[in-house]
Amino acid sequence: MHPPDPAIPRAPAHETTVRVRYAETDQMGVVYHANYFIWMELGRVEYCRAAGMRYRDMEREDGILLAVVEAECRYRRPARYDDEITVRTAVARANRRTVEFSYQLLLDAEVIASGRTRHLFLDKDLRPSSLPARYYALFGIGGAPASFRTEP
Amino acid sequence: MHPPDPAIPRAPAHETTVRVRYAETDQMGVVYHANYFIWMELGRVEYCRAAGMRYRDMEREDGILLAVVEAECRYRRPARYDDEITVRTAVARANRRTVEFSYQLLLDAEVIASGRTRHLFLDKDLRPSSLPARYYALFGIGGAPASFRTEP
Amino acid sequence: MHPPDPAIPRAPAHETTVRVRYAETDQMGVVYHANYFIWMELGRVEYCRAAGMRYRDMEREDGILLAVVEAECRYRRPARYDDEITVRTAVARANRRTVEFSYQLLLDAEVIASGRTRHLFLDKDLRPSSLPARYYALFGIGGAPASFRTEP
Amino acid sequence: MHPPDPAIPRAPAHETTVRVRYAETDQMGVVYHANYFIWMELGRVEYCRAAGMRYRDMEREDGILLAVVEAECRYRRPARYDDEITVRTAVARANRRTVEFSYQLLLDAEVIASGRTRHLFLDKDLRPSSLPARYYALFGIGGAPASFRTEP
Repeated sequence: MHPPDPAIPRAPAHETTVRVRYAETDQMGVVYHANYFIWMELGRVEYCRAAGMRYRDMEREDGILLAVVEAECRYRRPARYDDEITVRTAVARANRRTVEFSYQLLLDAEVIASGRTRHLFLDKDLRPSSLPARYYALFGIGGAPASFRTEP
Repeated sequence: MHPPDPAIPRAPAHETTVRVRYAETDQMGVVYHANYFIWMELGRVEYCRAAGMRYRDMEREDGILLAVVEAECRYRRPARYDDEITVRTAVARANRRTVEFSYQLLLDAEVIASGRTRHLFLDKDLRPSSLPARYYALFGIGGAPASFRTEP
Repeated sequence: MHPPDPAIPRAPAHETTVRVRYAETDQMGVVYHANYFIWMELGRVEYCRAAGMRYRDMEREDGILLAVVEAECRYRRPARYDDEITVRTAVARANRRTVEFSYQLLLDAEVIASGRTRHLFLDKDLRPSSLPARYYALFGIGGAPASFRTEP
Repeated sequence: MHPPDPAIPRAPAHETTVRVRYAETDQMGVVYHANYFIWMELGRVEYCRAAGMRYRDMEREDGILLAVVEAECRYRRPARYDDEITVRTAVARANRRTVEFSYQLLLDAEVIASGRTRHLFLDKDLRPSSLPARYYALFGIGGAPASFRTEP
């Protein structure tokens, strides 16, 4: 996995927000670091939804799972209880076997963390699988840009 | 569900210990309350294991799931990071359709919380099921006391 | 704590929504039961916000903590990944020392779970404290109904 | 942060075990990926304890916090409910300002995941701090190898 860089992801990115839960803090008074990876999950789910795809349906109807094989995060400034965090998600690279997402987490327009996750497409039995062609556009495979629906 | 009482559970109880994780604390400097229910889960899993039953096998081999239908906890004193908590678990009542566990959580021999969970036996499709007879003893059904293996 | 009942909470209730995260599911394919208590937390935080109070400020500025001393939940139907759950929150009873919230969790207008939490007001050192008078209205103490701001 | 490699960490490593909780699984039937970072936390806490240092005391008595500034994990094979995972922890590098831990997670002697975390030493106000000299040996700073107590 290439090291994450502070530059704005170049791909068309999607933004969603998440409000910090009390349960996500720890006794340091800030968000426990592992929870950032849950926010990244929310980011990629909403990325898919914005492109017209519901991840739940991909699992249920096509039996395609996105298993995480690499995950990383760099933390710059802490997030605190009740903060509203913006999760900016983009597809860094993708092919029929794998997809890599990049993320920026922002608080008040400042990047407080950045991360990446790499995933393999698996079938229901958790064996490597090949992404059906109808999802290529979603991940920008084959030159096809991810088509974003305009929010109503 | 009957209200939990401070008395020591009358049934043969099993004890296991769990050390408080940093991730389980919140910014109040104590353990976030929802995590006590995870400790109760550990308690009943170890209760079963001590009686010679691996809950994993009950799910996998017999397709029996213990779905939680009621859960409650009373908190008396907070638990803190790195504390070693004793989880004392007993079967409060059980029949072929349902089982109720009671719990006491102790720190330095003092009860810091008590709780109960009630479960239905479900099949793999999450429909109510009937407990196979070979598990009766585990839950003390039919007068059969839960037989505890002596720890090696 | 009085047993939860299926009736709609009589007090002026507040509703907020939460979408089920993948992280909140377990291998049973449904939401792990302890996570419902986190949703209840979101419910009471948004209840306060709707009434013009930010819980974070109450902690920071007045040093008032709402420590959970009792929590219970009854589960009727499972919640699943990506479901949008409505959390309906009301103050069941309150005085200067304690407050009890009641909750209903709904999916597609059907109640899938109900719960209650009881809290003590504590100071920063986690000692029982008395709620400042300026918060009475928030919890409907002294006959004062909780005043809800109209959402913009 | 240097990329994690599959080689056994060269520093004196410490091993501890953790049993997979039901709460840690997701609907894919395996452990949710963010939870591996919690296991790494357990690994470094036990690493410290084995060296004669209780992390809780370092926080409480010396006001030294280990804030995570980078975290990464590579997942090779899934972990499942009730598996007993071995967490092998070592200090990859350290100086007075920062420490980097490396981890291997093993199931039945096979490495199923590897990871790294980098930390800054902070004071109670979350400002960068300098590690007190009496902790140098713990992290192998200044050529001093981490001294491990023999387990009783």
